[in-house]
Amino acid sequence: MKKNEIGPRTFIYPMPVTLVGANVNGKPNFTTIGYCGAINHNPPMISVGINQKHYIRIGMNQNKTFSVNIPSSDMVKITDYCGVVSGHKVDKSQIFEVFNGKLENAPMIAECPLNLECKVVQTILYPMQEVFIGEVIAAYAEDKFLTNGLPDIKKMKALVFSMHDNNYWTIGENIGKAWSIGNELKDKLKE
Amino acid sequence: MKKNEIGPRTFIYPMPVTLVGANVNGKPNFTTIGYCGAINHNPPMISVGINQKHYIRIGMNQNKTFSVNIPSSDMVKITDYCGVVSGHKVDKSQIFEVFNGKLENAPMIAECPLNLECKVVQTILYPMQEVFIGEVIAAYAEDKFLTNGLPDIKKMKALVFSMHDNNYWTIGENIGKAWSIGNELKDKLKE
Repeated sequence: MKKNEIGPRTFIYPMPVTLVGANVNGKPNFTTIGYCGAINHNPPMISVGINQKHYIRIGMNQNKTFSVNIPSSDMVKITDYCGVVSGHKVDKSQIFEVFNGKLENAPMIAECPLNLECKVVQTILYPMQEVFIGEVIAAYAEDKFLTNGLPDIKKMKALVFSMHDNNYWTIGENIGKAWSIGNELKDKLKE
Repeated sequence: MKKNEIGPRTFIYPMPVTLVGANVNGKPNFTTIGYCGAINHNPPMISVGINQKHYIRIGMNQNKTFSVNIPSSDMVKITDYCGVVSGHKVDKSQIFEVFNGKLENAPMIAECPLNLECKVVQTILYPMQEVFIGEVIAAYAEDKFLTNGLPDIKKMKALVFSMHDNNYWTIGENIGKAWSIGNELKDKLKE
């Protein structure tokens, strides 16, 4: 086995593709973000890393609220579009059907199978990104995207993103239950 | 369209499944972490959220270094196993072929298609997790997992994780190029 050293990058596979929403100067804006991950389990907290030049950052700092919307793979073109046009130049407030939840300034996308409404609990400035740590205040989904009351990644047809080679993918096949299928190795590895 | 409010959780889809590595008291330890995301593009920085009870946290704080290893879906059982047994009780130092890179204390898993060697640049204590912000110092992969010098998510057969319903998935089909397929909507949406 010969491992090559490849130039360091943010090589996380898979990455999610999210549409982050905020009101900027009173108007809904949405941008496409892969730099999104979970941070703390309870209370639920997530991080989004926003390029410091991005228009949406203005609104996130104005209101200290934002949304994270999980698009389906049927929405791949419009999701990509929100990443290729900037709110500095294009008004994205009319693209989607927008709804609001408990917070005044966390516009959410009705067309997305899953919506998270977030309150900013911390911001951290890194060299290129400002990272917003958000507490998830509420989540929204239609029945058809749920199984046993929880989001179902297959029903939602969640998008998968590979950054660096810039590809979108669908979810493949189920290959097992977490915190479960590893149990059968417990005895084997003791031998 | 009727959206239900569902109890807030860390509903990020998809999540990656990583094996985080660190030396604890001089011995390699690995644990399974879904709370991993990109934070800053350049220099490349990532976050990993480690449950405060997790054994590996001791080593990450001792050495201020760690690794993130991306397993393939062929490794789903052993990946899950590393999440179901605790380093407090079980010695996981012999499970994998371990190699080291530039840092002294960031043990990496040879069997994993992609390895990131990280230096801790910040730690933040949240209610349940300690979040380690790591700068990726180097990355390693065999030729067979690369396309044009970059990791190839399909060749690696990266695992996809859906937390909350606890399922592992494979990567599906390619459905388009990022920062590209959205361009065709530019004119349409102007109409």
